[in-house]
Amino acid sequence: MKAEQIKELDNIFSPRSVAIIGASEQDFFTLALMGTKMKENLYLVNPNYKEVFGKRCYPTILDIEEEIDHAIIAVRASLILKLLDECIGKGVNAAHIFTAGFSETGLEEGRRLENEVKEVAKNRIRLIGPNCMGIHCPKSGLSFVPGASAEEGTVGVISQSGTFADMFIATGDIRNIRFSKVVSYGNGIDLDCPDFLEYLSDDPETEVIALYIEGTRDGKHLKSALAQAARRKPVVALKGGVTEHGSRAASSHTGSLAGSPEIWSSLFKQTGVVQVDNFDELVDAVLALTRSPLPFGKGVSIITSSGGFSVLETDSCVKAGLEVPQFEERTREELKRIVPTAGTSVRNPLDAWPLYYNVSETSGTVSAAIKIVANDKNIHSLLLHLDELKYVRHVWAEAYDDCLKEFINTTISGCQYARDEIGKPVAVCVSLDAFSKDNEDRKDHLAVKKAFESKQFPVFSSLDAAIKALFNLYRYRMKLTKTMLESD
Amino acid sequence: MKAEQIKELDNIFSPRSVAIIGASEQDFFTLALMGTKMKENLYLVNPNYKEVFGKRCYPTILDIEEEIDHAIIAVRASLILKLLDECIGKGVNAAHIFTAGFSETGLEEGRRLENEVKEVAKNRIRLIGPNCMGIHCPKSGLSFVPGASAEEGTVGVISQSGTFADMFIATGDIRNIRFSKVVSYGNGIDLDCPDFLEYLSDDPETEVIALYIEGTRDGKHLKSALAQAARRKPVVALKGGVTEHGSRAASSHTGSLAGSPEIWSSLFKQTGVVQVDNFDELVDAVLALTRSPLPFGKGVSIITSSGGFSVLETDSCVKAGLEVPQFEERTREELKRIVPTAGTSVRNPLDAWPLYYNVSETSGTVSAAIKIVANDKNIHSLLLHLDELKYVRHVWAEAYDDCLKEFINTTISGCQYARDEIGKPVAVCVSLDAFSKDNEDRKDHLAVKKAFESKQFPVFSSLDAAIKALFNLYRYRMKLTKTMLESD
Repeated sequence: MKAEQIKELDNIFSPRSVAIIGASEQDFFTLALMGTKMKENLYLVNPNYKEVFGKRCYPTILDIEEEIDHAIIAVRASLILKLLDECIGKGVNAAHIFTAGFSETGLEEGRRLENEVKEVAKNRIRLIGPNCMGIHCPKSGLSFVPGASAEEGTVGVISQSGTFADMFIATGDIRNIRFSKVVSYGNGIDLDCPDFLEYLSDDPETEVIALYIEGTRDGKHLKSALAQAARRKPVVALKGGVTEHGSRAASSHTGSLAGSPEIWSSLFKQTGVVQVDNFDELVDAVLALTRSPLPFGKGVSIITSSGGFSVLETDSCVKAGLEVPQFEERTREELKRIVPTAGTSVRNPLDAWPLYYNVSETSGTVSAAIKIVANDKNIHSLLLHLDELKYVRHVWAEAYDDCLKEFINTTISGCQYARDEIGKPVAVCVSLDAFSKDNEDRKDHLAVKKAFESKQFPVFSSLDAAIKALFNLYRYRMKLTKTMLESD
Repeated sequence: MKAEQIKELDNIFSPRSVAIIGASEQDFFTLALMGTKMKENLYLVNPNYKEVFGKRCYPTILDIEEEIDHAIIAVRASLILKLLDECIGKGVNAAHIFTAGFSETGLEEGRRLENEVKEVAKNRIRLIGPNCMGIHCPKSGLSFVPGASAEEGTVGVISQSGTFADMFIATGDIRNIRFSKVVSYGNGIDLDCPDFLEYLSDDPETEVIALYIEGTRDGKHLKSALAQAARRKPVVALKGGVTEHGSRAASSHTGSLAGSPEIWSSLFKQTGVVQVDNFDELVDAVLALTRSPLPFGKGVSIITSSGGFSVLETDSCVKAGLEVPQFEERTREELKRIVPTAGTSVRNPLDAWPLYYNVSETSGTVSAAIKIVANDKNIHSLLLHLDELKYVRHVWAEAYDDCLKEFINTTISGCQYARDEIGKPVAVCVSLDAFSKDNEDRKDHLAVKKAFESKQFPVFSSLDAAIKALFNLYRYRMKLTKTMLESD
């Protein structure tokens, strides 16, 4: 991307001032921006109010004396042309049109209005949308999610759907994912997916790109932008509308021409993009990619306290495309020294429940087992399953709090050894049912999660999610290797 | 099953008295049974204690004066033969051997001991196990899960894995599944999977059977038992060890010869059993099957407030094997009257977010939309997505509590109409992240879940789970139709 274009988009993500046209105490842009550092450079516009949340409210954008970089237009479609004219008159750089009711309705009327908006804006103002949520950038304070984390991160998100972007940010907050830049671009009649891809691939603050797309108006531009981005950083994409019925739903959502699923899969494959199947897999893959070294092969070691589930976990790994290979002889010998025989297994999966009760390094611990396994040459990544809190609570009784703390600390040190010294990724599964009623147990699970997250380990609430994420790390490694070989 | 055998197994699930050999305050059988009505008829045995939890503790089972129906043996393997002899001497009907260290170790020593146990018991005492958790029966109070719900239900579970059975009961408690009888049978050297299948297929208290199996010693008996059970009630099965690596893990877990995955799939197919892929799918299928009429076709209507997710939901439905067909013309006309145009769709998926803010029957409501859609002949089941609590909280502001209550009530009445008057299953998804940090929002989600559960609707925390469950309802309906046609 040219320096001039980068500057233009920098200004879109980090404007010096923002006006909300249609501001009110019910409007969530107003709510969001009153809660970030953008508040100082925020101007509210609505002829119906003199004040909103105690802040002055202007009848029109033209009444504001200061310069406005960025306007958010959140009013009904019939007013758009007039307001856009006023934004242009005011010298606004970019307008984000939240309003829906354009080509996505499938109605002639909506299509006509969309074309008029396009004509009016051409070469005079940049547009984001319509039918979208716009920009979220913790660094500048521009946002559409009230109460979102202000912490800056390294994940960039480009989403054709507003709810999707909104949900990604909300889920990121829960899952310890932090963002550089998020854009929901909707109908994308001016700035479109490829523009944002090019920008984020150049952006030094963005290390991983997540993409949700339903269709495109310019396949050629999209392809080159995807290829460029994927050469520079991991790009994980979810295509909405990959089935006939889904594609019909997409066309009524963003007015996209969706194309066949095969065309999209081959587009992602050719450009080195990791395509995933659903929202959860996208979030989990992004989480793993921001935190982990890449595995050099398919071999996973499962370390668990449950024999029954270790069989299913193994099946899940293999179904996902990974392997659960046998340990080297040396590994088995070393494990035998720390794992008691009855009801356990020193094979892979390592069903080593008695270790889950030990916290001292002098006896066999989970941490010791992790360190042994991490050195096995058949093993390329580790899956640690923590699911015994209810039982250890019972076993440790009054010593529970101290023992749990000690257990977490020693286990984390084992995981750090595997990741940081040996260079193998470790996925941690802290099994927790979303509807769990045991608040005490839930609190413990969340504490364990937080402890591992504080050391930047990716934590998952289900085994299948952790397994899929490890597989996507492996897939990305394979794509990278392929690209390196090709450019040799 | 012969009346005599039924009586024998009735006694195993509902013994008049139980002795725990190896009782202690750390033992979870002791903990579990001290908390159920079985406590009155519970006898503790352990030469190391005079009392456990204030209850008399006997040196051996022979020291108990009262008759003992059922013994739980939870001591190390080397003591088993002696203790089994004592149980036989005491006239115990059945012994459940929790102890591991038999054929599942893969060691000659374990195999030999297992054969000796079998010889000693033959025709003198029935055995459950070894290497298993035994029996959980809320009606009798026999249990291995401390604090499990005492409510009786209609779901029977047969599991080769103890952790699996334990997890099913814990999850059932969270997901509003209640049990008739659960058995974890482990190595199954006497009473084995087919015996329990035959018993539960005759059992009037069991309406749905869930099965977890890793392998069998008697394929012929298993096949006939599966076929018999599936003719009488839904049987949902999960096979552990369907991959090469998983099968190796299974052999070290229960010492099973697993057989090829294809053999198992064809066994389930031939016998009319619904085979699922993982634990969550099993739980979700069982939940749906205990609550729902069966759909007469693949057509799902998705009712949601999120356009972005409605596309992905549609893809998920189609990938799962269902369809998201277009509505009849009449349905669309009726919906148009209650759904505003902009940013919504009266197509299927029904992206009708403004309805989610309405609670009065005089305006358009989600309930009204459900009633219209339920009458569409292209639609065979309904998927209701509730995921706007954070937003309606903002929109309803101070009226939130009252509005939410009203919204839940009217929406439930719509769902009841669809299910009870029209006879179409309704799956409810109350999207909730397991790691959610917003406790207020979580409380609301749980309240909505509880309200729908109180009217016996199956509630899921993820869309994919709800979709899979609807698909499994459809699969069961197809199996039923096939069986009916064959027996014609």
